[in-house]
Amino acid sequence: MTDSRKGACLVVGVGDGVGSAIARAFAAEGYVVCMTRRPRHLDQLQALAGEIAEAGGDARAYGVDARQEADMAALVERIEAEVGPLEVVVFNVGANVRFGLVETTAQVFSKVWEMACFAGFLTVREAARVMVPRGRGTILFTGASASLRGKEGFGAFASAKAGLRAVAQSAARELGPKGIHVAHVVVDGSIDGVFIRSMRDDVDDLLTADQILKPNEIAANYVWLHNQPRSAWTHEIDLRPWAETW
Amino acid sequence: MTDSRKGACLVVGVGDGVGSAIARAFAAEGYVVCMTRRPRHLDQLQALAGEIAEAGGDARAYGVDARQEADMAALVERIEAEVGPLEVVVFNVGANVRFGLVETTAQVFSKVWEMACFAGFLTVREAARVMVPRGRGTILFTGASASLRGKEGFGAFASAKAGLRAVAQSAARELGPKGIHVAHVVVDGSIDGVFIRSMRDDVDDLLTADQILKPNEIAANYVWLHNQPRSAWTHEIDLRPWAETW
Amino acid sequence: MTDSRKGACLVVGVGDGVGSAIARAFAAEGYVVCMTRRPRHLDQLQALAGEIAEAGGDARAYGVDARQEADMAALVERIEAEVGPLEVVVFNVGANVRFGLVETTAQVFSKVWEMACFAGFLTVREAARVMVPRGRGTILFTGASASLRGKEGFGAFASAKAGLRAVAQSAARELGPKGIHVAHVVVDGSIDGVFIRSMRDDVDDLLTADQILKPNEIAANYVWLHNQPRSAWTHEIDLRPWAETW
Amino acid sequence: MTDSRKGACLVVGVGDGVGSAIARAFAAEGYVVCMTRRPRHLDQLQALAGEIAEAGGDARAYGVDARQEADMAALVERIEAEVGPLEVVVFNVGANVRFGLVETTAQVFSKVWEMACFAGFLTVREAARVMVPRGRGTILFTGASASLRGKEGFGAFASAKAGLRAVAQSAARELGPKGIHVAHVVVDGSIDGVFIRSMRDDVDDLLTADQILKPNEIAANYVWLHNQPRSAWTHEIDLRPWAETW
Repeated sequence: MTDSRKGACLVVGVGDGVGSAIARAFAAEGYVVCMTRRPRHLDQLQALAGEIAEAGGDARAYGVDARQEADMAALVERIEAEVGPLEVVVFNVGANVRFGLVETTAQVFSKVWEMACFAGFLTVREAARVMVPRGRGTILFTGASASLRGKEGFGAFASAKAGLRAVAQSAARELGPKGIHVAHVVVDGSIDGVFIRSMRDDVDDLLTADQILKPNEIAANYVWLHNQPRSAWTHEIDLRPWAETW
Repeated sequence: MTDSRKGACLVVGVGDGVGSAIARAFAAEGYVVCMTRRPRHLDQLQALAGEIAEAGGDARAYGVDARQEADMAALVERIEAEVGPLEVVVFNVGANVRFGLVETTAQVFSKVWEMACFAGFLTVREAARVMVPRGRGTILFTGASASLRGKEGFGAFASAKAGLRAVAQSAARELGPKGIHVAHVVVDGSIDGVFIRSMRDDVDDLLTADQILKPNEIAANYVWLHNQPRSAWTHEIDLRPWAETW
Repeated sequence: MTDSRKGACLVVGVGDGVGSAIARAFAAEGYVVCMTRRPRHLDQLQALAGEIAEAGGDARAYGVDARQEADMAALVERIEAEVGPLEVVVFNVGANVRFGLVETTAQVFSKVWEMACFAGFLTVREAARVMVPRGRGTILFTGASASLRGKEGFGAFASAKAGLRAVAQSAARELGPKGIHVAHVVVDGSIDGVFIRSMRDDVDDLLTADQILKPNEIAANYVWLHNQPRSAWTHEIDLRPWAETW
Repeated sequence: MTDSRKGACLVVGVGDGVGSAIARAFAAEGYVVCMTRRPRHLDQLQALAGEIAEAGGDARAYGVDARQEADMAALVERIEAEVGPLEVVVFNVGANVRFGLVETTAQVFSKVWEMACFAGFLTVREAARVMVPRGRGTILFTGASASLRGKEGFGAFASAKAGLRAVAQSAARELGPKGIHVAHVVVDGSIDGVFIRSMRDDVDDLLTADQILKPNEIAANYVWLHNQPRSAWTHEIDLRPWAETW
C-alpha cells in the first residue's frame, strides 16, 4: 500500500454499472479499491482495474464467489495484509429475477438468497471482524424497492433483499456503538446499463431527461455516506429519478 | 376423509405450543388436521394426534423435514389424495437464535434461513399449486417482532423472518386475486410453553396476569383470519400481551 | 340501562355505512350503542336507532360535533351517568377529499384535520378518562390506506389520517399497560355505500363478486378486536377485498 | 439581489441551533438566506443575519408567524420580488412537548399541530406555487423519530410530525414529476443546543465523544440533498449519532 492512500475499499459484486461506478468513486477519493466478481468474469474486472489506474487510481481485481465463506474470509485477510486496513466495504451483489410463485424452483429461490443475502451476511461479518478492533469503518449495502415489500412475481428477490436489509439493520444497531457506520441504500428505479439497454430502445432519451438512475450519481451517495461524521450518521436512504412514481 | 369434515388443514412445524394450539383449533373447527414435525420427533406428534382424536377431532402426524423440496411436494400430494382438499395451510416453523454478528457462523445463518424462510417458501408454493385451480384456500404464516426489523444479536433470525414476511407479502399479492387468502401474524412477546418455563420461574404468575401470550388465544386468531369472508381480508396482524412495551 | 346489557358502546361518526354497521354489530353483541353524528343529521341517526331497537337492540342517537372539546366531554359524562360504563369506543369520522397541493386551501386542510384527527384525539382522551380508573375498555379507530403514506392529491387527507394513526399508536402504548385495548383498522378499498354508488353503476356486480368491502364484514372485525383477551391483543389490522391490488 | 448569488433560500423556523446552522450552510453555498421566526424574537434573528453577513454571506430576517396563511403567502411573494427566485425552502419548525394523553389539552394538541404540521403545509404549498412554473426547486422538512411512530407521552407531537411527514410524502409524489425535489429528514437523537444544555451537565463530554448531533453536521445533509442531481433524488434520510440505540 502506498502511504498516500487512505486505506482499502472493498466492493463486492462489481458486475454492473453501479459496482463499477462505486469502485471508481472511492478510487477517486484516494482509496485502494479492491473489487470482486465471480472468477469467470475476472478478465472484465481486470480491465476495469486498468481503467481506474489510467485515471490515476489504484484498483485490484479479485475473482471470488462471495457465497463461499472461506473465500470471503481469505479475501479480507489478504486485503488487510497486502493492501491496508479496510475502511469501506460495499456489498453490491444483485440477483433480480421474476417468476410467479408456483414457477419459482427451490434452486432459484436458494440461489437468489445465496447471492443477494447470504453473501451480504458473509461480507458484513468479515468486515466487522477487522473493523471492530479499530473502532472505525463503513459498510454499505445496495438495496432495491423489493427490499421494502414483496410484490407479485418477486417472491424470491424480495425475500432475499428483505433478508439483506434485516442483516444491515441488525449490523447497524450492533456495530454502530462500536464505531462502524452501516447503511442501506434503496435504489428504486431503472439504472442506466447493459440490462436496461437490452430491454429498451429509448435509454438515451431517458438519460437526457434524467429519467433513469445514473451509476455515477448513485455512487456519489455512497461516498457521501462514508464521509458523514459519526455524530450524524444515516442508516437508510432511497434514490430514485425525479419523475418516478412510487 | 369422512364426509362430515370440512377438508384438510396442514400445519407445518408443530413443535411448540403454538403449533399444537393451531392444530387443535382447526380440528375443533371440523378440519382434518395434518401436522408435521421433523421425523425424529414423530412420536410426540403422534401423541398429540391421539389427544386431538380423544377430543373428537381428526388429526394425522407426519414426520417431515420441511426444508426438503421433494418431501414437501409429496406431503401435499399425499394429503390431497388421502385426506381431502387442503383448505388451510399454516407455516409455523420457528428458529429463534441469538448470536453477535461476528459469532454467527455461516452454518447457523443458513440453517435458520432454511427453517424459518426457505421451508416457508416451499410450503406456500406447494399449497398454491393445489389451491389456485380451486380458487380458494387460506395460507397463514407465523411471524415475530424480528420480522419487522433487525436488532443487535438477531441478524440471522431477523433476516430469515424478514425474508419470510416478504414471501408472505408477495404471495398475498399474487394469490389474492386468485382467491387465496394469505396472511402474516406478527407474534410479539413471550409465549407460554416449554422454552419460557426453562428460562423463568414466574410463568404461572405471568399467565395469571395475562402478561404472556397463550397459545390457544394466538390460535383463535388464525381461525378468525381463515373465516374472514373474501370481501374483507386481513393480510397482517400483530398479537401482543396488554402490558408489553414495543 | 337495563341490567341485561353489557355496558355502553360509543360510536363517533355514524354518518356512513361503516358507522351504521359497527353500531348494529355492537348492539347485537348486547351493548347499548350510543351513536353520534353532526346535529343537522340527527333525524337520520334517530331513524337508525329505531331500526336497531326493532331488531332487539338498544341504541341512542346524539347530535354532536366531535370537534368540540366541551361537547365530547359532556357526551361521555352523560353516557356514563345515563347509560352505563363505556366498554367500547369507536372513532369512525371520515373526511376523504382530493385536491392538488396548490389547490388545497388552509380551510380545507384544517377542516379535514379537525374532523379526521383532532376529533379522534378528543374521543380517545375522553374515553381514557373514564376507562383508565376501571382498568378496562376498548378504543378502536377507523383508518385508511392514506393512514400509511402520502399520495399525490391526498396531502390533506393523508396528513390527517397519519396524524390519527400516531394518536392511536401513542394511546395504545400508554393505555395498554393500564388495561385499555387500542387498535387501528386500516380499511383499504372501496366500501359499499352511498358514495361509491354515486360514482359507479356496477356496484351490485362488485358486491356479488366480493370486490368491494361490505360494511357488515368490516364491523365484524371491530367486534373481534374488542373480544380479544388481553393476553393477545392486536393493535393494527388491514382489511381489503380479495382482488384488490396494493 | 446581487447577480453573484444563486437565488433565494427560505428557512422557516430559525429558532434553534439546527435552523441557524441550515441558514449558515446555505449562505455559505451562495444563496441569499431568508430566515423566519415569530415576530417577538425578530431581534435575535437580525443578530444572526448580521453574523452571516460578517462571514461573507447574505441573510435577511423576517418576523413571521408561519401558521398565518396570508403572512406566509405575502412572505413568499415578497422574497420572489425583492430577493430572487426561491431555489430552496426548508421547514424547520419544532414543537416537541411531552404530556400523558389525559393531560393533553385540546389547546396544546392544536397548537403543536399548527406549528409542526399546518405551518409546514402552508410552507410547501406557497413554495410549490412559485417553483412549479419554473420546474425546479428543493423543499426540505425536518422530521424526528416521532415522525415514524407514536409513543407514550408523545401523542400530540407524534401526531403532528406524522401528519407533516404525510404532507412531505404527498408533496414529493406530486411535485417530483414537476421537477421539485421534496425530502424529509428524520433527526433522531439529542442535538447540541440551548435545550439539551438546560437539561444536562455533560453536553461538552457528549460533544467530544460525538454522542449528540451537531447542528452544522445536520445542516450539511440538507445541502447535500439540495445538490443531488434530479436523476437520483433521496426522499427520506435519517440522522443519528453513532452510539444511539433505536
